[in-house]
Amino acid sequence: MIVLKLGGSVLTNKNSSRAEINESNLSRLSCEISRFLDNNDEDLVIVHGVGSFGHPLAKEYEIGESFKDSEYLYKQIGFVRIENEVKKLNFLVCEELINEGIPVIAVPASTIFTASNKRISQANLDKFKQYLERGYVPIIYGDVVLDDELEMAVISGDQIIQYLAINLNADEVILGTDVDGVYNKNPKVYENAYLYERFSSLDDLDVFEDNINVDVTGGMVGKIRELLYLADFGINSIIVNANIENNVYKALKQEKVTGTIISKEELNEI
Amino acid sequence: MIVLKLGGSVLTNKNSSRAEINESNLSRLSCEISRFLDNNDEDLVIVHGVGSFGHPLAKEYEIGESFKDSEYLYKQIGFVRIENEVKKLNFLVCEELINEGIPVIAVPASTIFTASNKRISQANLDKFKQYLERGYVPIIYGDVVLDDELEMAVISGDQIIQYLAINLNADEVILGTDVDGVYNKNPKVYENAYLYERFSSLDDLDVFEDNINVDVTGGMVGKIRELLYLADFGINSIIVNANIENNVYKALKQEKVTGTIISKEELNEI
Repeated sequence: MIVLKLGGSVLTNKNSSRAEINESNLSRLSCEISRFLDNNDEDLVIVHGVGSFGHPLAKEYEIGESFKDSEYLYKQIGFVRIENEVKKLNFLVCEELINEGIPVIAVPASTIFTASNKRISQANLDKFKQYLERGYVPIIYGDVVLDDELEMAVISGDQIIQYLAINLNADEVILGTDVDGVYNKNPKVYENAYLYERFSSLDDLDVFEDNINVDVTGGMVGKIRELLYLADFGINSIIVNANIENNVYKALKQEKVTGTIISKEELNEI
Repeated sequence: MIVLKLGGSVLTNKNSSRAEINESNLSRLSCEISRFLDNNDEDLVIVHGVGSFGHPLAKEYEIGESFKDSEYLYKQIGFVRIENEVKKLNFLVCEELINEGIPVIAVPASTIFTASNKRISQANLDKFKQYLERGYVPIIYGDVVLDDELEMAVISGDQIIQYLAINLNADEVILGTDVDGVYNKNPKVYENAYLYERFSSLDDLDVFEDNINVDVTGGMVGKIRELLYLADFGINSIIVNANIENNVYKALKQEKVTGTIISKEELNEI
């Protein structure tokens, strides 16, 4: 089974203050996935980020931070506003995927997960398994969830891929992002930055804090942490640039593609 | 706890071949619910119908009818198209309710229910209970669900209210529809038709088959069957015309309102 993440920065115009979808990326990626599924029987789970549909609101309402009792209703409204906006993005993403003949069925994180201090602590994956068994493509996205300690939390798509990959025994994890993979330092700042073909520890980063974009759910370092955790379980993942045509298709087909493999195995074992 | 159903015929232009929302009803009903919640601590669950967002597609794809193996992918696409369209309606309904300050959180039927021969046979109501405990208003809607016998089925909002009312121990069930209640025969055809103040058996209907609109999920007779089943458990319900201003508000407040009470108790016991 493959877990494919489509980044919020790929599907939406993430830096826009308004919730805006990136139509051309969505349409092209839907075709790439459809082309793969037409000739492959592999089970697939899609996780998508939420970009400008979720992050500005999560920031505005400071979901996941402590708050006074008197702020509870305000926070609740923030929680449900976010749930509703990310659901809207999911509707748009599903519409395009369905138009390409992909039977995607939403299984929202806010309905199946509970968190403790921002980490998924309880889950009901029954529907995931049932939909997969019957040939559907379950789709899930960054969302708000109830939190035992903080009342409410934001769960990133990256945390979701990690959780699902382990608990659904994924064979492969693909992250479609807006960068080519993991660099030793920010390639926009340092000319001599280089791309890792394979990455196995955060210690390898030369300029840690400065590495590419940081968002409310952790940015690239957050992603890497989730994937290194997966690597500890023997599940390798690959980060590719989904803005470049056919990268996601090639990754799905396990063809050679520019990107970074996150793995703790020796390179020649992969 | 109150279970409130907002009918698809009230929220959408049901007879339209295109999915169309009834903006003015939605906006007015959101105000009525908000006005009630401002002065009442009562737990509330909202169930909404899907009208023109669901019924035409359910008919087109004949979801819930038997099919050949070769039609499976076609049926799957029908299933996911419906799930996505009703999710879109739910987004629009939630947006309006949230704007009125109501913390509604979607708990989709396609994620929590399984059916056997079109009836809910398995459910996970944990998230319903958790959201209610924390003061949210869970919202659910007519949807497609996996079916053990038929592979897939459509579950009406009316079946959902019945199931939730019993399994969440509702004190009160309110159905906001586009009619004044239950008539002994179709009031549009028979001048001498009269409205039941209280209704306790389908045998009371003079012209059964002819009674008001029939839709893919059973129409008025289907509604009454679900509510009579509830009445067997001692849970009374009331059908009111939600097209008329303040009817839903009055029903929520348990004020006198035109409508039909479905109950098996004697009238003076109610």
